[in-house]
Amino acid sequence: MCVFNHEPEGYRCPFCFVLGGGETAANTQRDIVRRGSAATALISPRWWPNNHGHVLVVSNDHYENLYDLPDEHGHAVHDLVRQIAVAMRSSYGCQGISTRQHNEPAGSQDAWHYHVHMFPRYPNDDLYASRPYPELVSAAQRWPYADKLRRYLG
Amino acid sequence: MCVFNHEPEGYRCPFCFVLGGGETAANTQRDIVRRGSAATALISPRWWPNNHGHVLVVSNDHYENLYDLPDEHGHAVHDLVRQIAVAMRSSYGCQGISTRQHNEPAGSQDAWHYHVHMFPRYPNDDLYASRPYPELVSAAQRWPYADKLRRYLG
Repeated sequence: MCVFNHEPEGYRCPFCFVLGGGETAANTQRDIVRRGSAATALISPRWWPNNHGHVLVVSNDHYENLYDLPDEHGHAVHDLVRQIAVAMRSSYGCQGISTRQHNEPAGSQDAWHYHVHMFPRYPNDDLYASRPYPELVSAAQRWPYADKLRRYLG
Repeated sequence: MCVFNHEPEGYRCPFCFVLGGGETAANTQRDIVRRGSAATALISPRWWPNNHGHVLVVSNDHYENLYDLPDEHGHAVHDLVRQIAVAMRSSYGCQGISTRQHNEPAGSQDAWHYHVHMFPRYPNDDLYASRPYPELVSAAQRWPYADKLRRYLG
């Protein structure tokens, strides 16, 4: 399936780095909301203007995309997405949830490790036509959202 | 969880209708690409201008949204989404795949039965900022895409 793969040689995967205990300005251990045996949820450092605190759910093992992902890892991601959907809906004050998943550059993918975006939604938030902020948000902006989800999940 | 539910009383579900063998201008039996024991894929009648032939994967049983969906039904939807992703990527001539899933009116949901949108993607297709066609597309437009996927899936 390598015609469908785009990860460059020597890629330093940001998700594998944070899952391995690493910290950068973009991803810290406190951003991690829940870690299961095969999937992990963390606050995204890339925000859309009306959907702050969006979450990424990633497979713990490194698979580039949906085509490559073994089904049991996909199930673990799905289960965690559902748990986070309920937690986000219950703790953010949002009125809906939507998800997106991207494969390949033409499919809007830009991190080469399977992940699902989860957005808190609000009436007229214009998520689809709006653009994310050009700069990543700080840990101080992200952590209150991680704390809310963790508190809800108990 | 009924504060999160929006299906009106007496709702006539279009997905349940086509899954039960019914046909309308929007959904016919030939639009159904693959039917598993818990999930089904069919060509959407609502198209975006640069992403023709997009697919909906639905749970066979009627659940309104992600919050309500039992995990095993979510797994079946995921597995079929992955099969269709490979089939679409291999048979449409597209260069990527992206998916979306919507919950509640604020989350862009407008059919009250859990479904995942699967879009064929092309460089610079402007999927997110573009709007779907205001009119549903005809069966004659949809069927060639259903036939392509069915042929690939064998």
